[in-house]
Amino acid sequence: MSKGKLFIVSGPSGSGKDTILQGVFKKHPEIKLSISSITRAMRVGEVEGEKYHFISRDEFEELLKNDMLLEHNVFVGNYYGTPKAPVEECLNAGGDMILEIDVNGAAQVREKMPDAISIFIMPPSFEVLKNRLSGRGTETEEVVEQRMTAALGEIARAKEYDYIVINDQLDVAIDDLLSIILSERLRINRQKQIIDEVLEKC
Amino acid sequence: MSKGKLFIVSGPSGSGKDTILQGVFKKHPEIKLSISSITRAMRVGEVEGEKYHFISRDEFEELLKNDMLLEHNVFVGNYYGTPKAPVEECLNAGGDMILEIDVNGAAQVREKMPDAISIFIMPPSFEVLKNRLSGRGTETEEVVEQRMTAALGEIARAKEYDYIVINDQLDVAIDDLLSIILSERLRINRQKQIIDEVLEKC
Repeated sequence: MSKGKLFIVSGPSGSGKDTILQGVFKKHPEIKLSISSITRAMRVGEVEGEKYHFISRDEFEELLKNDMLLEHNVFVGNYYGTPKAPVEECLNAGGDMILEIDVNGAAQVREKMPDAISIFIMPPSFEVLKNRLSGRGTETEEVVEQRMTAALGEIARAKEYDYIVINDQLDVAIDDLLSIILSERLRINRQKQIIDEVLEKC
Repeated sequence: MSKGKLFIVSGPSGSGKDTILQGVFKKHPEIKLSISSITRAMRVGEVEGEKYHFISRDEFEELLKNDMLLEHNVFVGNYYGTPKAPVEECLNAGGDMILEIDVNGAAQVREKMPDAISIFIMPPSFEVLKNRLSGRGTETEEVVEQRMTAALGEIARAKEYDYIVINDQLDVAIDDLLSIILSERLRINRQKQIIDEVLEKC
């Protein structure tokens, strides 16, 4: 069986990345999402193993020490990381997997898995981004400014990615992301079997 | 404006390549088909400039001499070739173009335009191929054998291609080919403008 493919999906807050991914998994439930391991406390409504594995600092540092992470990051004093084993298991079983990580994590994964395909989700314009980050107008100008600075810092690194999906219309953006994933399944290295099968019968 | 992309589509007789391409152009009429120049006589029902430009041997040899062809072939004493200029014009204007050519032509184009993406259309099995090539049972066994040999000779070279599309269900095959073409439009080199536009506003 040919191996599956790893897809890195990044995009700033305000890009609509989460909603696009929900649409992708709804249409193609066979595509798996990697579950991050994190050390921050579980919040109300969160479920262990759904989006995150909640582990202790000691457990995380053990993973780090044993080189069992594809990427990791520290954010507000907590560790965030992607365990290597589940990703490798999924790909070896022929499945496709998405890592939803930021620009720093993406750079780390690219080093370790150069075959990974990376996709950056963009807001369609500066104005739309600002609008989305302002929320319902309940945020202070300072908070909006901070969010914009962080988002623009990520967008400045979008050129490190293989593909850009612009989230102007949600359904188009979902189909765009799917076309990138599905076309990878048609690559020659995943299709050699059918050629051999037809030729064997001669 | 970023350049368009060239797609080479090949597939043996019996692969259903023509029907798939019709479906692709119907859904995305902005994708252009390259028109071959050929020296054989026009057949009943054929229209100049629709699928072929009908030119004289002298005209064809003039194109050859001046290196104005991307690829060419001789078949039953007639020349077949792809003029370079219309392809370059289309790509320079940002348009995507499909070349429907055989495995020999594809190899020539890959040498001259290494950025071209090549796609091979496969029948789903040996049995289906044989069935399709037998036509309505009106062909002699010898003719069917000849067609099978030619088809299998092409399939043996399918591994030279970037992608394989299996024509089992027509609508799936059309969407597969489209996902390859459309995902190329999302590549970073064709999307840099949107990043610059958003960042410029800061």
